[in-house]
Amino acid sequence: MAKFKLDEIDHQILDMLIDNTRVPFTDIAKKLVISAGTVHVRVKKMEDAGIIKGSSLTLDYKQLGYSFIAYVGVFLQKTSQTKFVLERINEIPYVTVAHITTGKFNVFCKIRAKNTEHAKDVIFMIDDIEGVYRTETMISLEESLNDKKRLMHSIFNEM
Amino acid sequence: MAKFKLDEIDHQILDMLIDNTRVPFTDIAKKLVISAGTVHVRVKKMEDAGIIKGSSLTLDYKQLGYSFIAYVGVFLQKTSQTKFVLERINEIPYVTVAHITTGKFNVFCKIRAKNTEHAKDVIFMIDDIEGVYRTETMISLEESLNDKKRLMHSIFNEM
Amino acid sequence: MAKFKLDEIDHQILDMLIDNTRVPFTDIAKKLVISAGTVHVRVKKMEDAGIIKGSSLTLDYKQLGYSFIAYVGVFLQKTSQTKFVLERINEIPYVTVAHITTGKFNVFCKIRAKNTEHAKDVIFMIDDIEGVYRTETMISLEESLNDKKRLMHSIFNEM
Amino acid sequence: MAKFKLDEIDHQILDMLIDNTRVPFTDIAKKLVISAGTVHVRVKKMEDAGIIKGSSLTLDYKQLGYSFIAYVGVFLQKTSQTKFVLERINEIPYVTVAHITTGKFNVFCKIRAKNTEHAKDVIFMIDDIEGVYRTETMISLEESLNDKKRLMHSIFNEM
Amino acid sequence: MAKFKLDEIDHQILDMLIDNTRVPFTDIAKKLVISAGTVHVRVKKMEDAGIIKGSSLTLDYKQLGYSFIAYVGVFLQKTSQTKFVLERINEIPYVTVAHITTGKFNVFCKIRAKNTEHAKDVIFMIDDIEGVYRTETMISLEESLNDKKRLMHSIFNEM
Amino acid sequence: MAKFKLDEIDHQILDMLIDNTRVPFTDIAKKLVISAGTVHVRVKKMEDAGIIKGSSLTLDYKQLGYSFIAYVGVFLQKTSQTKFVLERINEIPYVTVAHITTGKFNVFCKIRAKNTEHAKDVIFMIDDIEGVYRTETMISLEESLNDKKRLMHSIFNEM
Amino acid sequence: MAKFKLDEIDHQILDMLIDNTRVPFTDIAKKLVISAGTVHVRVKKMEDAGIIKGSSLTLDYKQLGYSFIAYVGVFLQKTSQTKFVLERINEIPYVTVAHITTGKFNVFCKIRAKNTEHAKDVIFMIDDIEGVYRTETMISLEESLNDKKRLMHSIFNEM
Amino acid sequence: MAKFKLDEIDHQILDMLIDNTRVPFTDIAKKLVISAGTVHVRVKKMEDAGIIKGSSLTLDYKQLGYSFIAYVGVFLQKTSQTKFVLERINEIPYVTVAHITTGKFNVFCKIRAKNTEHAKDVIFMIDDIEGVYRTETMISLEESLNDKKRLMHSIFNEM
Repeated sequence: MAKFKLDEIDHQILDMLIDNTRVPFTDIAKKLVISAGTVHVRVKKMEDAGIIKGSSLTLDYKQLGYSFIAYVGVFLQKTSQTKFVLERINEIPYVTVAHITTGKFNVFCKIRAKNTEHAKDVIFMIDDIEGVYRTETMISLEESLNDKKRLMHSIFNEM
Repeated sequence: MAKFKLDEIDHQILDMLIDNTRVPFTDIAKKLVISAGTVHVRVKKMEDAGIIKGSSLTLDYKQLGYSFIAYVGVFLQKTSQTKFVLERINEIPYVTVAHITTGKFNVFCKIRAKNTEHAKDVIFMIDDIEGVYRTETMISLEESLNDKKRLMHSIFNEM
Repeated sequence: MAKFKLDEIDHQILDMLIDNTRVPFTDIAKKLVISAGTVHVRVKKMEDAGIIKGSSLTLDYKQLGYSFIAYVGVFLQKTSQTKFVLERINEIPYVTVAHITTGKFNVFCKIRAKNTEHAKDVIFMIDDIEGVYRTETMISLEESLNDKKRLMHSIFNEM
Repeated sequence: MAKFKLDEIDHQILDMLIDNTRVPFTDIAKKLVISAGTVHVRVKKMEDAGIIKGSSLTLDYKQLGYSFIAYVGVFLQKTSQTKFVLERINEIPYVTVAHITTGKFNVFCKIRAKNTEHAKDVIFMIDDIEGVYRTETMISLEESLNDKKRLMHSIFNEM
Repeated sequence: MAKFKLDEIDHQILDMLIDNTRVPFTDIAKKLVISAGTVHVRVKKMEDAGIIKGSSLTLDYKQLGYSFIAYVGVFLQKTSQTKFVLERINEIPYVTVAHITTGKFNVFCKIRAKNTEHAKDVIFMIDDIEGVYRTETMISLEESLNDKKRLMHSIFNEM
Repeated sequence: MAKFKLDEIDHQILDMLIDNTRVPFTDIAKKLVISAGTVHVRVKKMEDAGIIKGSSLTLDYKQLGYSFIAYVGVFLQKTSQTKFVLERINEIPYVTVAHITTGKFNVFCKIRAKNTEHAKDVIFMIDDIEGVYRTETMISLEESLNDKKRLMHSIFNEM
Repeated sequence: MAKFKLDEIDHQILDMLIDNTRVPFTDIAKKLVISAGTVHVRVKKMEDAGIIKGSSLTLDYKQLGYSFIAYVGVFLQKTSQTKFVLERINEIPYVTVAHITTGKFNVFCKIRAKNTEHAKDVIFMIDDIEGVYRTETMISLEESLNDKKRLMHSIFNEM
Repeated sequence: MAKFKLDEIDHQILDMLIDNTRVPFTDIAKKLVISAGTVHVRVKKMEDAGIIKGSSLTLDYKQLGYSFIAYVGVFLQKTSQTKFVLERINEIPYVTVAHITTGKFNVFCKIRAKNTEHAKDVIFMIDDIEGVYRTETMISLEESLNDKKRLMHSIFNEM
């Protein structure tokens, strides 16, 4: 659990970075009426505390021709193969998320593909990993929500 | 589909931004032996083309006390309620992703919570939305992979 | 059951029509060394007996932008609504086949759509029919076989 | 995607052929007040563009003693066997359609048989293919709709 | 539990009646070297003890045109309707067996019908009973075993 | 299909035998005002036609300590083992009915046992047959209906 | 989490109480060569810390005629009814355990009954609670393990 | 079945022991106005009759850091492995209950763990037992009821 205590200033810095990670520290400083050095120190502190791990580019997958999203549930032959299978899954760039889960699946993945045919190829790549017994696919007809900002704001409000 | 053609330079700029969205344009310029202005123009162009939509902060949810991840499948009473239910789901900050899906669920969500008890509360919030008929939950025992960088690199290599 | 007996000549006529329904009767006649009139009489006889119901154009749906195929299982609220629901389904041109089935579904449909988004719209059209309780969709990743000729030849060989 | 543009005349020709593929071109020509040569040229053009792939005879399967329809979901041992299994399925004339699908089945087939007993034999043929792990059958109690004409008209109206 | 003790003679009488309920008591008596009166008394005693409840005619349903067998699982809206629904099911002569069961179904029935179409009608009769929420049907492709004689012999051997 | 035509007299004879297979032919004759010989001839004729196959004793299984009824769905490893497995099932006297079925099970059995523990033993006997992959059991909480008389009367009324 | 630290003596006291909760404190004292007062103080301390909540009698349910165990999964109409339904379930003494669960069931119960018929009555009591939509029952064929001692020893060994 | 008859005094003794197994016999004696020897004799008698098997400590698992409860359904490769697998399960202290069950699972377990990660380890221990084919986990979000006292009182009231 986070023993590190964020104060009101940290909170506002995070809020601005959440909206745009490329905002210059001088802009943040001006808005909060503090020095750019203070912003730098505090961001550094939050990075050192492990709260901020980095930032990632948000690309428009539709524009890039990767609008097909599917969830693939994976059944393994033996759970002792979990680590090996996850390493193989990790070699398929079209799998963006993978979880070990409870319920009927052993591993649950999210994939992005160009279209139905490409999705078939990606699913077949997973199916062909040694130790994978069977997969079951659920196709996204519409990505209605993909937003961690609301969660982040909610977390900072609680702290 | 993207009609916009990315050249080798764009590709290398994206590669550097994918690794760290806060890298100064002057650093990129130096590395690629081009002017910072060129970097600025090209990033601007990719933003205008809608390829780069922004950047998002990567936080350590474990550090923040939000280590519990679950997938919640939602059955609706009538699909005509889909839009209404998604708007309600959108008001729950602990739901970070929601898709309209094929297969047995109408809507499929990813949630982040503090622990089992909090997860129960979040699931109950979804269950209590008018029009939601039933939910089924799959709990993540380990997030083994959450990485879009490999996909981005793969996409840029193809372009 | 068919009381009507097909002889060797009928069989060969059907074989040629199965391969190409537009083949002129004179061509068939020449090949079988019979008169075109005989061909005409026999085809007429098979039509009257109800064996030949007509012929249908085979279009290339991929070329026409309709490459997305899915199977949709429909659950009804009450089977007494079956007839009504089938009439509504019949008004959706994207549903090409519908069966009343045993097993978990009440009605089972095949649909053709332009893409994922269009498929979502078609599924929602079915979902919104009064009396439809829920649907479950299975998406085709590849149409590997769609051929009644082998069956027809097999049937004629048995007769 | 179809780059080929159909005009009003093509549209009307297709409409007439959809209703009856054996209609003589002279009849089409008379009705549309164009020359039979024009009809011929345009049909040829649509065939060359790959829009018209051919035509198939519509037989009355009930009359022919093949009124039993079932859908058979196939589970494979490994998806790497998909191609091999589909080739074996292709040798069974009673299977008229086969798709590689998402969801719980790997391959999904439509079969036509004479009666319950014959259906059992056909299902057993599929079950006995090497690499087939298990099958699940859904029996049609009534074929309520089997009509691609509405779809074709709908497609041509959009073009 | 049966407090009534069957001896060797009772056992042999039952064995002969199991094979043919119409065998005259004089034949049984002759074979067992006892008097017909003794047979009569013992059969009477077993009837009074409730062990023998009667005898039923074994008809050839295939000969009678009723070769279609299916199992129908029934889901009720509320179990408080069980008694009412069973009374309605009891009015459908094509349902020959009905059980209240554990597992996913509330009531589980066996039906006999003439063919697929008749089966559909019988299933619809069940579906249309007030309080029946949904049914799921499993069709028999072959009745491989239907024989209580082996059980009876086994029971008598244990007594 | 039965080509054999039953008349009103046959119908009434069957009705009396359905109620009690041990009723003497003289009693039937008296009631129908025909000769006992006629009854004999007609019953013989129905037996020869294969309509009457015999008669079976109705025992009170509860009285005999066999009140536990369960349905067991059997999954096979390969359907080519069906015949072999059915022969093994046929050696277990506690299995009274077995069907090859469509749907999720390959074979579907009805068993009668003394109690929960005995049922476990019977299920294990089935589970241990070579070629049986898995079984799924549904336990009867109450046998609410087990009556073929209504069906027989219904059939005779239709003839 | 337990901030309270158990030492070696506490550990040994718990070990003896786990084996027999009625063992007199003087016996424990003698065995551990400490005073009975010390035992008393330490047990009191563990009770106050909430580690020991009490002790429960272990009865032989088989001897008492309650050998039938089943697990009942409960589906609710709305999760907002969870609290109300659990209060009603709490009034049925034959339900010994109830959990709010993830997965397909909303509530999952363990019941003990006298026999199949009594189990049916208990299941119907649950089914008839307002807000309960459906239940699914899994019957125990053998209680192979019911032992918390191993867990307790394991916990104390870790502390 | 229990042939042993409990009278009113036994009943009241059990009632007091159910509430607190450590209550001194002298306290019970005083309350019931009988001698402590009588209490001793009667408890001894109930122990000899096998009605009282012992008593178990009730610990607060939450306090001890074991608040995570899950139910794990186990599928075996062959039921002939049941005994072997149960012996292996018996070596995992975190499994507190295990049943051989009807329905889809062969064995059904209850586990207690420290948290999600520990639960994963315990599930993997089960998964890795030879003969275990697959497991399915249902996580408890809240233990709403765990109380055998109501059942015991109910049983004693019936006796």
